[in-house]
Amino acid sequence: MAERAIRVGLLGLGTVGGGVARLLLEKRAELADRLGAPLELARAVDLRAEPAAELELPEGVYAPDPAAVIDDPDIDIVVELIGGLEPARSLVLAALEAGKAVATANKALLAHHGREIFAAARRRGVGVAFEASVGGGIPLIRSLREGLAANRVEQVLGILNGTCNYILTRMTAEGAAFAQVLAEAQAAGYAEADPSFDVDGVDTAHKLAIVAALVTGRQPEVDDIPVEGIRDIDSLDIQLAGEFGYKVKLLALLRNHGERVEARVHPALVPEGHVLSSVDGVFNALHLTGDWVGDVLLYGLGAGRRPTASAVVGDVLELARDLRHGAGGRVPPLGVARGGGGRLELMPLAEARCRYYCRFTAKDQPGVLAAISRILADHAISIQAVIQKGRREGADVPIVMLTHTAREAEMRGALEQIDRLPVISRPTVLLRRA
Amino acid sequence: MAERAIRVGLLGLGTVGGGVARLLLEKRAELADRLGAPLELARAVDLRAEPAAELELPEGVYAPDPAAVIDDPDIDIVVELIGGLEPARSLVLAALEAGKAVATANKALLAHHGREIFAAARRRGVGVAFEASVGGGIPLIRSLREGLAANRVEQVLGILNGTCNYILTRMTAEGAAFAQVLAEAQAAGYAEADPSFDVDGVDTAHKLAIVAALVTGRQPEVDDIPVEGIRDIDSLDIQLAGEFGYKVKLLALLRNHGERVEARVHPALVPEGHVLSSVDGVFNALHLTGDWVGDVLLYGLGAGRRPTASAVVGDVLELARDLRHGAGGRVPPLGVARGGGGRLELMPLAEARCRYYCRFTAKDQPGVLAAISRILADHAISIQAVIQKGRREGADVPIVMLTHTAREAEMRGALEQIDRLPVISRPTVLLRRA
Repeated sequence: MAERAIRVGLLGLGTVGGGVARLLLEKRAELADRLGAPLELARAVDLRAEPAAELELPEGVYAPDPAAVIDDPDIDIVVELIGGLEPARSLVLAALEAGKAVATANKALLAHHGREIFAAARRRGVGVAFEASVGGGIPLIRSLREGLAANRVEQVLGILNGTCNYILTRMTAEGAAFAQVLAEAQAAGYAEADPSFDVDGVDTAHKLAIVAALVTGRQPEVDDIPVEGIRDIDSLDIQLAGEFGYKVKLLALLRNHGERVEARVHPALVPEGHVLSSVDGVFNALHLTGDWVGDVLLYGLGAGRRPTASAVVGDVLELARDLRHGAGGRVPPLGVARGGGGRLELMPLAEARCRYYCRFTAKDQPGVLAAISRILADHAISIQAVIQKGRREGADVPIVMLTHTAREAEMRGALEQIDRLPVISRPTVLLRRA
Repeated sequence: MAERAIRVGLLGLGTVGGGVARLLLEKRAELADRLGAPLELARAVDLRAEPAAELELPEGVYAPDPAAVIDDPDIDIVVELIGGLEPARSLVLAALEAGKAVATANKALLAHHGREIFAAARRRGVGVAFEASVGGGIPLIRSLREGLAANRVEQVLGILNGTCNYILTRMTAEGAAFAQVLAEAQAAGYAEADPSFDVDGVDTAHKLAIVAALVTGRQPEVDDIPVEGIRDIDSLDIQLAGEFGYKVKLLALLRNHGERVEARVHPALVPEGHVLSSVDGVFNALHLTGDWVGDVLLYGLGAGRRPTASAVVGDVLELARDLRHGAGGRVPPLGVARGGGGRLELMPLAEARCRYYCRFTAKDQPGVLAAISRILADHAISIQAVIQKGRREGADVPIVMLTHTAREAEMRGALEQIDRLPVISRPTVLLRRA
């Protein structure tokens, strides 16, 4: 049978784009068998000609100008792998307006302009797929959007940045300092020369914005998501948390209370019995709790050329199936055909209720614990466990405390007072428990 | 907009069927928003009228005869939750022949009659979905069939039976004997009165047959899959494996060598560093390795009314989307539109290459290890580690040995000779390592 080929136009031949081109070419026969029609890499665009030459693209596939994809009526699916906000945004919107399906791995783009892009896709009735934007090769977007669609997702805990997880895993295993592990990670290629996008939690927040949209059908402003990174994590706290039976992980956290939704990014203590605590190294994972399915964990490599290309080509195959069956836009961008799509207002962090880990640094003298406890009690915060490490008369000692659930605003208020006590020598370290 | 409803006919109102009915009724509004059209529980069939009464189905929905679903041209999707081989097989085939899409959770049916059912679905161009047949609520069928479709899956390791995993987890935690834990699991409702389907590995083999079909596009005869259950697992071996850093799990294992495919079910030693080793209690998980995606783990509840209903309704929603867009049969049953579908021949177990754990029971006298080692060497089996537990002159002592990779036939041959040695007091315990 000589089915019409589905024609793919690729924008960007960097690490992931090159992988996608390679995969589409190498597995041409298998993908055609899966689809029931050829899936053709018709055009690949990059400003530079070198990547195309290295990839040994077939004659006529390479073009330097994105217009060669966007303006070509024979291109069915546009794969955006340029990254960043512009020109990616304009190109994606132009592709959708031209009635083309779009697959993208661009989390920054979707976090900042998702509402606009998803609205355009719905209006034009074309498909937009973005599995590779969160969790690399892990099929988590598809699971949230389709497989688990019967559920109200009540909680999400995600380890979504491989660089941070690698650094924290090594700090835990070796008792090493953040700066040292970061430097070694940079030398080994596991961290960027400018690591702030990763280690300050920005990348994780982008991904959480996308996950929050899939869970609620509405999308938050990415700048509304409270974010704390791992730069200030002291290996002493990793060690002390370990003594209480916790591992420290950078989490993307979402709690869906229905009317109100909490979403935030920060380091958190994960109990060692929790399956998420064994997600180590560069691996990513999404742990979610649905009202019918219960707990689900999806785990795999969250970045890298090959896992990310796997996710992109999975998307391309799905979009191609839809087109082949005349069902473009079959799955709405956020899995909801009616309603949804608006802005998700997040609960202010001050109103969140968490369980805390506090490390006070105090002079070793009688009455310290009484003074701290009194202030906590005044703020309605109750203590679950305390350990005081070492005893050195007159010197500074760490006092570690786990609290029961308390309001963030109360906790902050209490710490402000505690840190003004004369017996407290240094600002208190505050971490949340998952 | 007054879109035509997609009409669902449900066969079977047992544990899962009742859950599906409940879910479709409770979430009618949310599901309609997702689909963009009403998703209507039009008919629910069970021989007994009581379940329907308990569920308070709307007037006219209950029927005692499956013909009320199969023969009704207004039913779009048939959900088969009767279980067992007949009449489930005939009803599913009749539904497909009538051009209806089918969702089923029936792993026994698909393991035994998958080729026939999938061929019928392809011939009629209708959809068949079976997420709930393996791994309950975990979206693993969808991931294998679509999300990871760009990959050649090279290996699968699955913990796919919650009863077995619960029993092994408790045996590990408590050092308890199989029979005792089984009895308690039965009392607590975690194991059936007749547990053989679970503990002898039959259920896991059914699920592996389905996974193997998705991985290779061809389906094995379920009776060709070598199966060993957990009935003979001695808690002593769990303890000794622990000393070497392994946990004992009942695994569904598939290795895809391309031309040749290994698939089998047996207890296996999983290293404690492997993410699968922390899958405990009634949880299930599928760990797979793809040529592009690398390692992926999908984890969740593998059984139970609510997780299974979550998977079934996810399937129903997907089938409904396809129908609404005129794209019935969009995804071929095994994800392959051209070719595939035949019988998968499995590599005989004798030719498999494994790493082994052996526990010899020998008289504590000089020369025992030399005798064992000589026989292993004669069969080209090399030893990685040995421990001899305790020393009791003249008494029986366990000698535990880990081997490097060896052919199963050689290992069996060696054990036959070893167990005939006069110094060997009891048949040797043989377990494989994952």
